Amino acid sequence: MVARNRHPTSYFDKVNMKKSIGAKTILYPAPVLIVGTYDKNGNPNAMTAAWGGICCSSPPCVTISLRKATYSYSNIVENNAYTLNIPSENYVSEADYFGIVSGKNEDKFKTTGLTPVKSELVNAPYIQEFPLVLECKLLHTFEIGLHTQFVGEILDVKAEEAVLSENGMPDIKKVNPILYATAEKKYFGIGNKIGDAFSIGKGSK
Amino acid sequence: MVARNRHPTSYFDKVNMKKSIGAKTILYPAPVLIVGTYDKNGNPNAMTAAWGGICCSSPPCVTISLRKATYSYSNIVENNAYTLNIPSENYVSEADYFGIVSGKNEDKFKTTGLTPVKSELVNAPYIQEFPLVLECKLLHTFEIGLHTQFVGEILDVKAEEAVLSENGMPDIKKVNPILYATAEKKYFGIGNKIGDAFSIGKGSK
Repeated sequence: MVARNRHPTSYFDKVNMKKSIGAKTILYPAPVLIVGTYDKNGNPNAMTAAWGGICCSSPPCVTISLRKATYSYSNIVENNAYTLNIPSENYVSEADYFGIVSGKNEDKFKTTGLTPVKSELVNAPYIQEFPLVLECKLLHTFEIGLHTQFVGEILDVKAEEAVLSENGMPDIKKVNPILYATAEKKYFGIGNKIGDAFSIGKGSK
Repeated sequence: MVARNRHPTSYFDKVNMKKSIGAKTILYPAPVLIVGTYDKNGNPNAMTAAWGGICCSSPPCVTISLRKATYSYSNIVENNAYTLNIPSENYVSEADYFGIVSGKNEDKFKTTGLTPVKSELVNAPYIQEFPLVLECKLLHTFEIGLHTQFVGEILDVKAEEAVLSENGMPDIKKVNPILYATAEKKYFGIGNKIGDAFSIGKGSK
């Protein structure tokens, strides 16, 4: 790798000054995750969350942070289980709707016509129409502040056959997931491939 | 919103069966986060991580999960501080390199020519050339398994003036961040805007 210090430090000192924009929850990109749960009566609910991500490789774990006031929070505490469902772009309206309305007041599956399917591994429903699903068993509950962080062990990942590549893994361009731009409160799609990981940065000495 | 149940359930039962692909750390998209730290001698280090995300709105917090074997793990424990730096697409080679090589063996700032700048808020360096930076004070350390999860309070976000939109917030298309496709081990860019959050899903009753 050729050193990329294309300007002397004095250039950056003058031109490249960073501007403080405050203590905000800005991170690019954030995911759009639909949390699938059952309530105490066995009714399925779906809620959109962007505060989450993979947090451990072994055991494979994923976090999702929810406010205690949400219906999904109570449902996860009740069942120690949830699914994370990755919507494709064509379900952006449903994904947004799941984040606007509470399951306390509406049957969101009925409203959208989407299909809850009971997981065979955990007591939570996944969304039939979404291309990629993680089935999670609650491992840890961490209190952070306004949000409670749930850490779930990923017991299985399920995908539509149509989104799998030749090696049997989900192809991100076929899954066609949604990104959430936290600072702008807008949804974006996936762009072009720009490189192979653990490869494009080699040969740097 | 018109119900989208365009096929009777029997259709999904037959055609839309999901395939199990195992208990894997697959989530689309994952971010590409460069963790900035100082070692005990005050030498700056940068490491790439994809296991992280926002985890609380108040206080504003972000998680990053690292293996204990990494140099950055020791540095965070030493200083209770780190920065998260969001590279733009044109730094994909450096971002990948930061994830391949250990700071135990190489001075990654020297190799890449990128510029470490000492944060005025926490004892950690940020990367001058990257458009978006989060300065984080360690709040919690959670043991999950192979990875340890650090929860940092975001004390400030700093951005290049050039990536700010008219409302003073960073524009994701100008930041031009990198996405990590976990199952494929490939990097992707940001695509097109597909909707406004808390808006496109309204009017669904």
